[in-house]
Amino acid sequence: MSEYIAPLKDIRFAMQELAGLEQVVALPGCEEASPDVVDAILEEAARFSAEVLSPLNAVGDKNGAKWKDTVVTTTPGFKEAYRQFVDNGWNGLGCDPEFGGQGLPRLLSAAVSEMWKASNHAFSLCPMLTQGAIEALMIAGTDAQKAAYLPNLVSGEWTGTMNLTEPSAGSDLAAVRSRAEPVGDGSYRIFGQKIFITYGEHDMTDNIVHLVLARTPNAPEGVKGISLFVVPKFMLKADGTPGERNDVYCVSIEHKLGIHGSPTAVLAFGDNGGAIGTLVGEENRGLEYMFIMMNAARFNVGLEGLGDAERAYQRAVVYARERVQGAEVGVRGGPKVPIIKHPDVRRMLMSMRARIEAMRALAYVTAAAQDHAHGNLDQVARQRGQAFADLMIPVIKGWSTESAIDIASIGVQVHGGMGYIEETGAAQHLRDARITSIYEGTTAIQANDLIGRKIAREQGATIRSVIAEMRAAATALDGDLAGVGARQSAAVDALEKAVSWIVDNFAADPKAAHAGAVPFLYLLGIVAGGWQMGRAAVIARARLAAGDADPFWAAKLATTRFYADHFLTQAAGLAEAVTTGAAGALAIADDSF
Amino acid sequence: MSEYIAPLKDIRFAMQELAGLEQVVALPGCEEASPDVVDAILEEAARFSAEVLSPLNAVGDKNGAKWKDTVVTTTPGFKEAYRQFVDNGWNGLGCDPEFGGQGLPRLLSAAVSEMWKASNHAFSLCPMLTQGAIEALMIAGTDAQKAAYLPNLVSGEWTGTMNLTEPSAGSDLAAVRSRAEPVGDGSYRIFGQKIFITYGEHDMTDNIVHLVLARTPNAPEGVKGISLFVVPKFMLKADGTPGERNDVYCVSIEHKLGIHGSPTAVLAFGDNGGAIGTLVGEENRGLEYMFIMMNAARFNVGLEGLGDAERAYQRAVVYARERVQGAEVGVRGGPKVPIIKHPDVRRMLMSMRARIEAMRALAYVTAAAQDHAHGNLDQVARQRGQAFADLMIPVIKGWSTESAIDIASIGVQVHGGMGYIEETGAAQHLRDARITSIYEGTTAIQANDLIGRKIAREQGATIRSVIAEMRAAATALDGDLAGVGARQSAAVDALEKAVSWIVDNFAADPKAAHAGAVPFLYLLGIVAGGWQMGRAAVIARARLAAGDADPFWAAKLATTRFYADHFLTQAAGLAEAVTTGAAGALAIADDSF
Repeated sequence: MSEYIAPLKDIRFAMQELAGLEQVVALPGCEEASPDVVDAILEEAARFSAEVLSPLNAVGDKNGAKWKDTVVTTTPGFKEAYRQFVDNGWNGLGCDPEFGGQGLPRLLSAAVSEMWKASNHAFSLCPMLTQGAIEALMIAGTDAQKAAYLPNLVSGEWTGTMNLTEPSAGSDLAAVRSRAEPVGDGSYRIFGQKIFITYGEHDMTDNIVHLVLARTPNAPEGVKGISLFVVPKFMLKADGTPGERNDVYCVSIEHKLGIHGSPTAVLAFGDNGGAIGTLVGEENRGLEYMFIMMNAARFNVGLEGLGDAERAYQRAVVYARERVQGAEVGVRGGPKVPIIKHPDVRRMLMSMRARIEAMRALAYVTAAAQDHAHGNLDQVARQRGQAFADLMIPVIKGWSTESAIDIASIGVQVHGGMGYIEETGAAQHLRDARITSIYEGTTAIQANDLIGRKIAREQGATIRSVIAEMRAAATALDGDLAGVGARQSAAVDALEKAVSWIVDNFAADPKAAHAGAVPFLYLLGIVAGGWQMGRAAVIARARLAAGDADPFWAAKLATTRFYADHFLTQAAGLAEAVTTGAAGALAIADDSF
Repeated sequence: MSEYIAPLKDIRFAMQELAGLEQVVALPGCEEASPDVVDAILEEAARFSAEVLSPLNAVGDKNGAKWKDTVVTTTPGFKEAYRQFVDNGWNGLGCDPEFGGQGLPRLLSAAVSEMWKASNHAFSLCPMLTQGAIEALMIAGTDAQKAAYLPNLVSGEWTGTMNLTEPSAGSDLAAVRSRAEPVGDGSYRIFGQKIFITYGEHDMTDNIVHLVLARTPNAPEGVKGISLFVVPKFMLKADGTPGERNDVYCVSIEHKLGIHGSPTAVLAFGDNGGAIGTLVGEENRGLEYMFIMMNAARFNVGLEGLGDAERAYQRAVVYARERVQGAEVGVRGGPKVPIIKHPDVRRMLMSMRARIEAMRALAYVTAAAQDHAHGNLDQVARQRGQAFADLMIPVIKGWSTESAIDIASIGVQVHGGMGYIEETGAAQHLRDARITSIYEGTTAIQANDLIGRKIAREQGATIRSVIAEMRAAATALDGDLAGVGARQSAAVDALEKAVSWIVDNFAADPKAAHAGAVPFLYLLGIVAGGWQMGRAAVIARARLAAGDADPFWAAKLATTRFYADHFLTQAAGLAEAVTTGAAGALAIADDSF
């Protein structure tokens, strides 16, 4: 049994050298994040994830959340771990100090989140959803709502949920049918059924704060008639503590492929007269608020992909070092060796590792962009940060999660037959990772957002400026990195070609453009990841040249090289799939499938 | 709940038009397989798989085989289905008529096997393993062994197993430690523990015939000291019926990611004095016999990949037709449509379907090659068939199974959130398919066999002749198929480049060659699949030109086009990974992982 060990060295490298931690902590409001504080937080998070969360991961898988008569009992140990999580102040790390948070930069909370997700994906969903509820209330809550809910949500005393999906309203939220009827005193009675509600019911806290999409009477049809409500499990007494039980009950939880430790609830609102809630923000603007907060959630799910992938990688490395099988290639009759010596095992491990490093680098750079978008005093820098983050969030969500599924599957493969045995633990990472490309918007939803709102709507302005940065970075890949540089340049060419095609065809042939959306998302992910790996390689080379003998630098050069030869080489083919692949995809008659 | 429907139209097309059924049934010994008989068998197999096996598939997943006190109880319904399977004569379809088989060609039994595997992967493993035991005895059994075991194995009254793996002898069978001690009467006492024994114990038949690898006293170390034994669960009485219980017991079964209906046994031989067995063939040649029979098993596992992929595709299509979500792209505010209208859903379905058709075509063509290798009166044709089959079997095993995992994962994705819920059924196909790239030799084992024994050892002779055939086929892709032809030609160029590199580097730099082995296997699979799709497209075009309005032909053109734009475009990048990718894979220090 291998426990998670936070890859602090690569985390620090990505934060400091690639994402510009120094500039981030110099932003107004981030003054608390001195180098010492950042270091201490990373160390402490690494300890908590290794010692508290990681050991509960397999337990949660095997002995998942249980439902009985509307009550959900979480995995033994989860409640106690959550209590420690709250007591240690982890819940409010990135939250507004006004409500008890620590106000630390997104870059730091991204790194810490990665550790929660890697050590225990199922557990980490609970604070992640609370974060969503906090953001919704911060964006649009009244002062009274903020005062009533935020302190307890920020501390983690209560948890939050996002209630969007209904049986006929999944990707298409325009189809939401839940109703909210005004009571007359400013509150509403909510009626309807919501599905796929993560931690929609559990036994870890005294209250649960549901954020719920519903329609008021006479609201317009479609997305412009959806409002957002806050509906606590227990209504608040005058002193702000939980009082009477509200009319929202968990009628079942799902039997899922993975993340068994995380209860996925079906919630019934209003079966006994109506669940009492209050309107958040303005009527009919609910979807807009949800989308703002969903951006954070999508970024976080991208980090889940990174976390699952890292966990799968670590387990595979431990096994590959321990498992002795066969002689070394080219040494006939030689002694048996650990399988990490075998070329294809190395290829598999490198294929995991290289993508993990690229995913981490891109995610952290995007986290830093969000910090600049939020806090930079220079308006141009704020706008640039926002535009970059808006462009990259669907990529981080879509590419990192799809890559994570493949990486976790390779993790199983490294274990051979043992990988297929559940007790080994490798299969759990594949089962857990498999949700990440689905929830908070499938990969297609991300890709449609990417080519539509993030590229075509602005005629590719942001992505072209990013491409220019990529080209500039590729020119630094000279000398012994010229081979990597050539691959990067060719991949950027392919990306640029695909961007032009999308900008040219999005309006004229929207179906063709959408048929190429997911291959385009992969293409951008691969090339953007390669860009960051190239930046890392230049730094590594400089350190080695300066006499720094840390093997970390040689390893970084190897992963960059591997990434270039195995992933950047896919770029040209993907660009062909984007620009020519729609014909085959759309030609077939519906009933010929 | 969607049940499996055998894709008879594409199966017949691949058999008749691509694999040359007419030539196969003209081979000596295949006279029984008249067009009417072949048709009737396909229809009847389709019925049996749809009505008997498919409904038990989810049952087997949910309510898998159970172990208690050395006894294994299979899923309710499996025993009865197996009885029907045997009574209907399915077990002996491809077996020698001398022992009660029907002697039908491999091409037909491949098509029928695909249906068993697609409708119920877990069930289908039992007759597949029996087939392995039959082949081992046919290859090397004494007349007495054949007489004692074959009639009941061919009929399916008894089942067979292959006992290779031990805890420290997985991919490396040289490490087998089980012992066989001569009793003095020509029989042996077998001692040792075997793991991962598919259907190693069950309640479906009166006897189980284990084929077991073990070492005789003073046998040489390594692969040259392993002998093969036949060890029945119940020893045979003088009248040939099962008598005394032999000393082989199931001490546990595995808790696996998938194929729950198939018991995977840990078998203890000789804990009570020794399990009685007899030697099959000559001492110390066991591995050689196993390898002959493993070729058939590997081909069959490739068909499992095809089957799982087809099943996942069918379920995804049914869901995509039923699930209504969102308006059509480009029709703002339009009516909600089934998701099969959405471009990315079509792309996903086509990505499944195009590869399935390519995998089926290549597998059936290889089955026909095996028929020619076995029965063609012309020696050159026999040799050509054998060489082609030897080359392609690792590809069919490795590429079809790895593709199947991806296809089954896409099947989950098509279902969105519902795909993650076990009751939907999509996740089972992913869990089931996940074993196929592992057992009967992992993908790396297949790839090493491919580049070593099948290519480098003969300096690429066979593959170069196949490449010549591919080039000739690409020239037929003219006119409106010229775009596909160009992609095919470019892909063949990439393949040829990679072949030359492997031939040149296999001996000089074996580690580098082995680091490129799996990418090379994918490359060959993709290009060989594209070759078959191109042949299919030429036929489809001719039918359409001749006025045949069956939409099957237009669909075949669409899948070919899709395959070319989405998969053949990967060839160049894979060739780069083969020829340059080892540097990054091998550079990193062991302890830097």
